[in-house]
Amino acid sequence: MTREPFDAVDVIRTKRDRRELTDDQVDWVVDAYTRGAVDQEQMAALAMAILLNGMSRPEVARWTAAMIASGERMDFSGLSRPTTDKHSTGGVGDKITLPLAPLVASFGVAVPQLSGRGLGHTGGTLDKLESIPGWRASLTGDELMAQLEDVGAVICAAGAGLAPADKKLYALRDVTGTVESVPLIASSIMSKKIAEGTGALVLDVKVGSGAFMKDLDTARELARTMVDLGTDAGVRTVALLTDMATPLGRAAGNALEVRESLDVLAGSGPEDVVELTVALAVEMLAGAGRPTPEAEVRAALGDGRAMDVWRRMIAAQGGDPDAPLPVAAHRQDVVADRSGVLGALDAYAVGVAAWRLGAGRSRREDPVQAGAGVELHAKPGDEVTAGQPLLTLHTDTPERFDRARAALDGAWSVGDEAAAGRGPLLLDRVG
Amino acid sequence: MTREPFDAVDVIRTKRDRRELTDDQVDWVVDAYTRGAVDQEQMAALAMAILLNGMSRPEVARWTAAMIASGERMDFSGLSRPTTDKHSTGGVGDKITLPLAPLVASFGVAVPQLSGRGLGHTGGTLDKLESIPGWRASLTGDELMAQLEDVGAVICAAGAGLAPADKKLYALRDVTGTVESVPLIASSIMSKKIAEGTGALVLDVKVGSGAFMKDLDTARELARTMVDLGTDAGVRTVALLTDMATPLGRAAGNALEVRESLDVLAGSGPEDVVELTVALAVEMLAGAGRPTPEAEVRAALGDGRAMDVWRRMIAAQGGDPDAPLPVAAHRQDVVADRSGVLGALDAYAVGVAAWRLGAGRSRREDPVQAGAGVELHAKPGDEVTAGQPLLTLHTDTPERFDRARAALDGAWSVGDEAAAGRGPLLLDRVG
Repeated sequence: MTREPFDAVDVIRTKRDRRELTDDQVDWVVDAYTRGAVDQEQMAALAMAILLNGMSRPEVARWTAAMIASGERMDFSGLSRPTTDKHSTGGVGDKITLPLAPLVASFGVAVPQLSGRGLGHTGGTLDKLESIPGWRASLTGDELMAQLEDVGAVICAAGAGLAPADKKLYALRDVTGTVESVPLIASSIMSKKIAEGTGALVLDVKVGSGAFMKDLDTARELARTMVDLGTDAGVRTVALLTDMATPLGRAAGNALEVRESLDVLAGSGPEDVVELTVALAVEMLAGAGRPTPEAEVRAALGDGRAMDVWRRMIAAQGGDPDAPLPVAAHRQDVVADRSGVLGALDAYAVGVAAWRLGAGRSRREDPVQAGAGVELHAKPGDEVTAGQPLLTLHTDTPERFDRARAALDGAWSVGDEAAAGRGPLLLDRVG
Repeated sequence: MTREPFDAVDVIRTKRDRRELTDDQVDWVVDAYTRGAVDQEQMAALAMAILLNGMSRPEVARWTAAMIASGERMDFSGLSRPTTDKHSTGGVGDKITLPLAPLVASFGVAVPQLSGRGLGHTGGTLDKLESIPGWRASLTGDELMAQLEDVGAVICAAGAGLAPADKKLYALRDVTGTVESVPLIASSIMSKKIAEGTGALVLDVKVGSGAFMKDLDTARELARTMVDLGTDAGVRTVALLTDMATPLGRAAGNALEVRESLDVLAGSGPEDVVELTVALAVEMLAGAGRPTPEAEVRAALGDGRAMDVWRRMIAAQGGDPDAPLPVAAHRQDVVADRSGVLGALDAYAVGVAAWRLGAGRSRREDPVQAGAGVELHAKPGDEVTAGQPLLTLHTDTPERFDRARAALDGAWSVGDEAAAGRGPLLLDRVG
């Protein structure tokens, strides 16, 4: 006989049989799993039952609270600036955090962007920044606070102390086919963001082939669940639903995306990246109690204010903002097979190609190539001519070209009609 | 990159998303799990997906074949007698194997009963026989063959070589809330029975509170699935659906059930135990190509033929058929609180009480008490008078009485009407 107040099998059966978990069951199972008193295989079965049978709003809220309670909470109340943060559910070419954090900070707000590394076809913010010579992802708590107060923007690795239950559960979900569950995704994201202690939060929920959420209804459900969780926890939370059918901008890969971000911070760059950066900044500033008109936000990209914060942010973490960025040793073009209008360019395929070229990793311990990735020379709706390069593939290891090209097979099409061009970037707002 | 031909996560996702597993996926995942290339947590997630999303008939057949292929197969073709076997899905007071195997063998048929131990509220056939002084459950393959040829009946432990995939998977299902799945139960039972190599098989599928299957529809589905699996594998298979709302006979516990079995082999014993023993024997003999009228089968219980085989079977495995059976050191009665007709006596509650008294085990390595259990003095439909003992609880460890009594709380009722008595024992036949 064990001294645990619950039996893991009873908890699993409750969810398996479509009954609601009690608060005490949730608190216990999350805590016992973190301690190791509930085994990995038991949590895997429970996660699958949650994925297939769902969770009620009170269950998700309690699950999130239990994951927060598994670790420490940060406290930014000593800062003189209000805090505001952004989280993206992950997409291909999604470098928005890089220009966004300094842009928002340039309005006197603190942006604590605790980020992760990439796994699978979506890149990781820390991997991208690590292509800048000297830049380091790890900060102590004191360094983080000082940089937030002084520079305003920090992009760094989340400490191991935040929501350790989530860390363990996420690794398990990754190998057990239990990632794609709205309650599990929502509680994973929100437990970290609430534990991080931000005052306001803007969620960028991606929809489309390159995102976890393939359809708008599920994405809306995820957005609504996360907004409710944040609001109930006292964090001013809104979500934008944005298109991820085709990659954001014209680059997917670590240094390639830093280069594009520098263009945006210099007042140019691809319009979709600028549009989304500005839209998210407007929401973040409003959440932080500093409502700012869109035109004024956009101006900070053109007049050097955002770039100035970027340079200070990179330098504060040991990076040299003037150092040349790494370039891959080998390149290959993918060319248009006919003239016409580019009808589609599948985000997932581009993400997988960039991953296979070396920009991403298959296992957490794998290294990434700073210069690897995919450069886009045309976007859906653009006119192209036969033989024109549509994509350039970059890698240090040319034996990877074949598998990257295989991933791109059927990922784009050129037609006669301009009608099939890209739809709107901003699909909906939940708040 | 791994050299495995499939990725466990892809296989899990296939079933999770309600798609059918291919033959190659099934073969691989069962084999890789047995080898340890698929982790416990991955199989747990897959098992939960199978439990919630089901399996098609071809999927279950392939899964069963893959589990058989994970180990060795026995071959009884060298015997001069035809083989026939019985499997019960498990119930409270289900000692039927004890009188049944010698009864059937007394008609010149070989009965290789490879059995297991009890876990949870249902007792194990080997645990029951081990209450006979000297009796041993383990036989070598040669001993098994010799005893089958010579005595005809063998009840012994299944060797570790039969369906090792099932052994590993069953232990996992037990701790992950994934036991109650028709495809998983059917493939678990049938992989062992087909690997065992019997020519004919009769399944006793229990229905009711004391059984895994609580309702007739699910039990019928399980029976149909198993009969199909057996038939497709060349084993003549039929299933009887039998009632397990109330315990079989008047005893639940190891030595208590051996004693009752001896009564049946001596031509007396509770009528429900006799009825089911005879019904199953008729089916087993027909399956073995020795069709025998029911009256003739019943006669072999009264005239000593079955008892004679029993004595030789026990002696062949080192047991002393004349040795006194162990008796528990302590007893307590549970008495009727009023006069009337016993309306119900819940099988599950009696099973749990016997388990708590020491007849069963919570963990595979726990010992069991030979004398512990529950004796029934009345069955549903019987008239009882206030203060009359309804049950006697037996244990060597009297501190267990309280928890056993707690299990019996509300498990029986005495009313005015005789109407609420027991329904038929044999509910249906699938074949």
